[in-house]
Amino acid sequence: MPASYANHRAQLKAILLGWGMPEDNAEISSEILSWSDLHGVDSHGISMIPGYDRLRREGRARMDARPKVVSETPVIAVVDGDGGLGHVPAHFAMKTAIAKAKTSGMSGVAVRNSAHFGATGYYTLMAAKEGLIGMACTACAGIQVAPTFGKAARLGTDPWSFAAPTADGQPFLLDMATTTVAAGRVRNKANEGLPAPDGWVLDSEGRPSDDPEIVQKGGYLTSLGGSPENSSYKGYGLATMVNILGSCLSGATLITERPNGIRTASSNDIGHFFMVIDPAAFRPAGDFEADVSLFLGHLRSTPPVDPERPVMVAGDPQWKLAEERMRDGIPVGAGLLSQIRQIAQAAAAPWHLD
Amino acid sequence: MPASYANHRAQLKAILLGWGMPEDNAEISSEILSWSDLHGVDSHGISMIPGYDRLRREGRARMDARPKVVSETPVIAVVDGDGGLGHVPAHFAMKTAIAKAKTSGMSGVAVRNSAHFGATGYYTLMAAKEGLIGMACTACAGIQVAPTFGKAARLGTDPWSFAAPTADGQPFLLDMATTTVAAGRVRNKANEGLPAPDGWVLDSEGRPSDDPEIVQKGGYLTSLGGSPENSSYKGYGLATMVNILGSCLSGATLITERPNGIRTASSNDIGHFFMVIDPAAFRPAGDFEADVSLFLGHLRSTPPVDPERPVMVAGDPQWKLAEERMRDGIPVGAGLLSQIRQIAQAAAAPWHLD
Repeated sequence: MPASYANHRAQLKAILLGWGMPEDNAEISSEILSWSDLHGVDSHGISMIPGYDRLRREGRARMDARPKVVSETPVIAVVDGDGGLGHVPAHFAMKTAIAKAKTSGMSGVAVRNSAHFGATGYYTLMAAKEGLIGMACTACAGIQVAPTFGKAARLGTDPWSFAAPTADGQPFLLDMATTTVAAGRVRNKANEGLPAPDGWVLDSEGRPSDDPEIVQKGGYLTSLGGSPENSSYKGYGLATMVNILGSCLSGATLITERPNGIRTASSNDIGHFFMVIDPAAFRPAGDFEADVSLFLGHLRSTPPVDPERPVMVAGDPQWKLAEERMRDGIPVGAGLLSQIRQIAQAAAAPWHLD
Repeated sequence: MPASYANHRAQLKAILLGWGMPEDNAEISSEILSWSDLHGVDSHGISMIPGYDRLRREGRARMDARPKVVSETPVIAVVDGDGGLGHVPAHFAMKTAIAKAKTSGMSGVAVRNSAHFGATGYYTLMAAKEGLIGMACTACAGIQVAPTFGKAARLGTDPWSFAAPTADGQPFLLDMATTTVAAGRVRNKANEGLPAPDGWVLDSEGRPSDDPEIVQKGGYLTSLGGSPENSSYKGYGLATMVNILGSCLSGATLITERPNGIRTASSNDIGHFFMVIDPAAFRPAGDFEADVSLFLGHLRSTPPVDPERPVMVAGDPQWKLAEERMRDGIPVGAGLLSQIRQIAQAAAAPWHLD
C-alpha cells in the first residue's frame, strides 16, 4: 500500500534519529528525501537508505555533521561539510548562497568533505522559491560512465540542475543526470525482460550493447547523446564541467581518484557547487518572472505529436506527480520495503509504513 | 587553396570596414570570426558573412554599435548592445564580467539589443586566458527545434559554453549546441547522399526521419538526446535554461516571439548571458588549476576503444586543428568563396583570398 507523505517522512526521520542524527539534521534530511519520492525522483529518496546505511557503517558519512563556512566574501563561500551525509551540508550551502545573492545579486558556494545529497533539484528549488535562479551540481562516488571513445569508467551520472521562478508560482526546474539515462532505467528494462535501447549502454570494450545487464558485467553507461555520432561528447563535456565545479573548485576528491585515493580520512569527500542569481539585480522586480512565464507558456502551447501527450517544460511532470502522490500516497516496492524494515529494526526506529 | 590565417582575418576586416564598421569594432569582430574558422568552428566564422550582410541590409545589425552598461553593481551588469552585430557587444560584456570577477570573485553580465555573436566558446576562453572560469550562452534567431513531444519549431540551437583554466596552459573548453547536431552536420549528410542517422531530425509531424533534407521541408532538429526514450527532454531543458538566462534576464526578445514580435524597432534584439568565477576566490592560487589538469589527465588516459582515436577532453580537438590550420591555412569552400568575393566587391573591400 502506498505510504502517506507524512508517514513516509516520519519513517525516514525515525531511521535517521535511530542512526544518531540530531533532531535538526534529521528534520532537514528527511524533508529532502521525502520531497524526492513525492516528486517522482524515486532513485534519490527512500531507496537510498540502504546505501546510506552502508556509508554510515563504513564511517564515511557522519550523522552529526555541523557544516561550516571556512572562507567567504559577500559573494562566495567555501563550506566544509564536516564529513556529513550530503543533505545537511548541501542545504546549509544553498541557504548561504541564497542569503549572499539577496545582498550581492549573485553568489557561488563550493562544498567539500560531504557525501551523497539526494536530488539536486531540491536545492535549486530552494532558490526558486525565494524568487532567485538556482544552479547546482555535484560530483558522484559511483564510477560507471566511459568518456566518449573510451573503454573504462571514469565518470558518474554527474547531475546538473537549474531552477528559475515564474510569475505563476510554478518554477522551471531542470534536474538531469548528464548520462543518457540513469542506471535505474537500464535496470527497469532488465526487470521487464526488454533489451536496452540503442545508445543507452556500452559493453566492457566500449562497443554499443543492447544487454540491459551489461553494466553489471563490466559495461558502462553512456554520456547524454549516447554515441559519438549523436554527440555524446556533449554529455561527456557537461559531466566534466560538473566535476570541475563540484570537485576542483572546492578541493574535494576527484571521481578519478576513487575509490582508493579519497583525500579525507573519514568521509566520502564528495564536492558540490551551488550558484544563485537574483533576477531583481538585472531587471525591475517582476519583469524576469513575467518573461519566464510567457516563454514557458509559448513552449507548452506547442502542438503535440500525440494529443494525449501535451508538451511540457522541465518541472511540470514533477508538480503533477507530487499532487497525485500527496493525495494517493507514495508507492514503495515490496523488496525495498522489506530492506527498510530491517534497517529500521536494526536502528530501533518505530515503524510507520504499514 | 586554403587561406593563411593573416589573409583570412584581413579579408574579414576589409569587408567589415567596407560595411562602415569603425576600425576598433572591425578589429574585434574579425579576430573573433577568424578564431572560429582557425579552431574548426566553420559554421560560425567566415560562412556567417552572407547572413550578416542580410541582417545589415535589413537594418537589424548596426556596424557602429557602442555597447554600454545600463545598470551595474560590483557583481553584475546589464549591457545594451546598441543594436550591434553581436561580437562587439559580447566582447564588451565578457570584458566587463572579467573585470568584475577579478574584484568580486564572481560576476554575471546580461546583454540585450544584440545580434549573432559567432562562436560562444570565444568568450568563455577570454575568461580562461585570464585564469578564470567562464560560462556563456545566447538566444538564437533561427527557430528550428521542436520541444520534446511537440510538432512545431520553438527553439534554436541555443549554445552553452564553459571554459576553465588549467595548470598546463591549455584550457578546458566546452562549446556545444543543445541540439543533437547542428543544421550544418545534417546538410553535410545530404551533400554526401547519406541518410540522417537515427535521432538527428524529425519530420513536420514530429516523427523520426532519416531524410537529411527534412529540415528544409518543414521538419525539425532534435534536442540533445534525440528522442524521448534517449532523454531529449534534457537537451530541451538545457535549451530552455539558455533562453531564460539569455533573454529573460536581459529583457531581450524571446525566441518564441520571433520573427514578428521583436521588441526593438531596429535591431535583432538577441540576448546573451556571461558568467565568470575566479577560482582564487575559492582556493589558494594554483590549486584549482592543478586539480583541473590532474582530472583532465585522468580522463585523457582512459584506454581508448580504438588505439588510433585517443580519448580527449573538450577543447583538445580545437587546439589541434588550430595548430594545423595556422600552419597549413584555413580551407574555404569554392561556393562560399565566390559568395564572399561578391560581398567584398559590393563593399568595395580589397581581396585577400587568392
